[in-house]
Amino acid sequence: MGSGNVATHIAAALKNAGHQIVQVYSPKYDHAALLAYYVKAEPIHDPGLLQSVDLFLVAVKDDAIEAVVAKLAEHDVPVAHTSGATSLALLEKYVEQAGVFYPLQTFSKVKEVNFKTVPLCIEANNEQLEEMLLKLGSTISQSVYKVSSDQRKILHLAAVFACNFPNYLYGIAQNLLKDAQLDFGLLRPLILETAVKVQDQFPAEVQTGPAVRNDQQTMANHLEMLQQNDYLQQVYRLLSDGIIQMNKS
Amino acid sequence: MGSGNVATHIAAALKNAGHQIVQVYSPKYDHAALLAYYVKAEPIHDPGLLQSVDLFLVAVKDDAIEAVVAKLAEHDVPVAHTSGATSLALLEKYVEQAGVFYPLQTFSKVKEVNFKTVPLCIEANNEQLEEMLLKLGSTISQSVYKVSSDQRKILHLAAVFACNFPNYLYGIAQNLLKDAQLDFGLLRPLILETAVKVQDQFPAEVQTGPAVRNDQQTMANHLEMLQQNDYLQQVYRLLSDGIIQMNKS
Repeated sequence: MGSGNVATHIAAALKNAGHQIVQVYSPKYDHAALLAYYVKAEPIHDPGLLQSVDLFLVAVKDDAIEAVVAKLAEHDVPVAHTSGATSLALLEKYVEQAGVFYPLQTFSKVKEVNFKTVPLCIEANNEQLEEMLLKLGSTISQSVYKVSSDQRKILHLAAVFACNFPNYLYGIAQNLLKDAQLDFGLLRPLILETAVKVQDQFPAEVQTGPAVRNDQQTMANHLEMLQQNDYLQQVYRLLSDGIIQMNKS
Repeated sequence: MGSGNVATHIAAALKNAGHQIVQVYSPKYDHAALLAYYVKAEPIHDPGLLQSVDLFLVAVKDDAIEAVVAKLAEHDVPVAHTSGATSLALLEKYVEQAGVFYPLQTFSKVKEVNFKTVPLCIEANNEQLEEMLLKLGSTISQSVYKVSSDQRKILHLAAVFACNFPNYLYGIAQNLLKDAQLDFGLLRPLILETAVKVQDQFPAEVQTGPAVRNDQQTMANHLEMLQQNDYLQQVYRLLSDGIIQMNKS
């Protein structure tokens, strides 16, 4: 169920691994048709046409999951959603066998993703389905984890700190450069290297910058350069203080 | 001058590009000897032994630059330092021809860096030296920029936002996962992809997460999950507010 970025990438990965996608459902028929064409499935826009298969995978927007799952109740088929922010319990309101098949990566339509490296978070309300989802996951990814609904909430929160906030800070840096007539390209290799470093090391081990050295003079200079911008001074102070405290403990 | 990470990577890149490194100076002779061995130069620990060459490159720690440059004054040789945080004016106190040859990347001894992709920031107090440093830079890097001392200060500040702070946020995410018995490996691909995305796009174009959607319910849930930690609540609020404001403007 679904024809967006997540549905497209999962369907393609499953198809490539030799699984059969029987039908693609979307309320927008042309969307369903496009994805169905790629994975050689039947497009449908009416849930009444659903066949009884081994598994329903629900990869629609978070706020559309419940409405879709309600329509699956009449079938005796296990249902798994692909959402990081939705509990297993929501599915259990409608279906007997409920699971989660959540790929922890940001997908965009334009950019192909190597699914092998995408961590998959699996959960189910019975052992048989858990086993099935773990097995299915391992055919498309090298990193399959059992993650409970409570853990998944934490993971989602942690991803805000690890990805959404860093991206916002990249944007702040870009604006500082722009004001000085400097090209963002100057910082791109450094941004990439910073992310590459923590692929085989832990962040605290590779922390650099004035705060971790407790270099008060440089931090004072930086705050002075930001004196026109209260907000950026606050961000600079708060994060630098955190790094200084981390280093003390 | 110097035998640390920056000196080593620059010397190796210059040597590989066909330039001759004549001498390597370090107050610690064995350090000088090791680098000199690799780049087929003469190691020296006494500045009195310096030969008059085409260029002195000073790649020592920021707080050691002045002492080293003071010893170069007697030679009529252009001097360039490799520091992001040091002005050109410091060199001009001691030598006539002063320049900057600053590679904007984080170097570690263990990890080899493809110097071709490292942005080089060039500055000089006369056109002839500027020309020479731009030309020298272009033999080892594809990204050579003219950057004034004032711009370099901004660049250094922007790098704190683009690299030091994001790395600290990766560490916060790791701690959140640890408390929930989750592996940091779950987030590594997402961290990498977030940095890869801004290599050919701008951060504001690819911002994701609850704040950019102004998803108040999710942000309230996240703040509740952080209720045991005032500091993390502050960080979450401050950065989310910034993203919400950015999106409004």
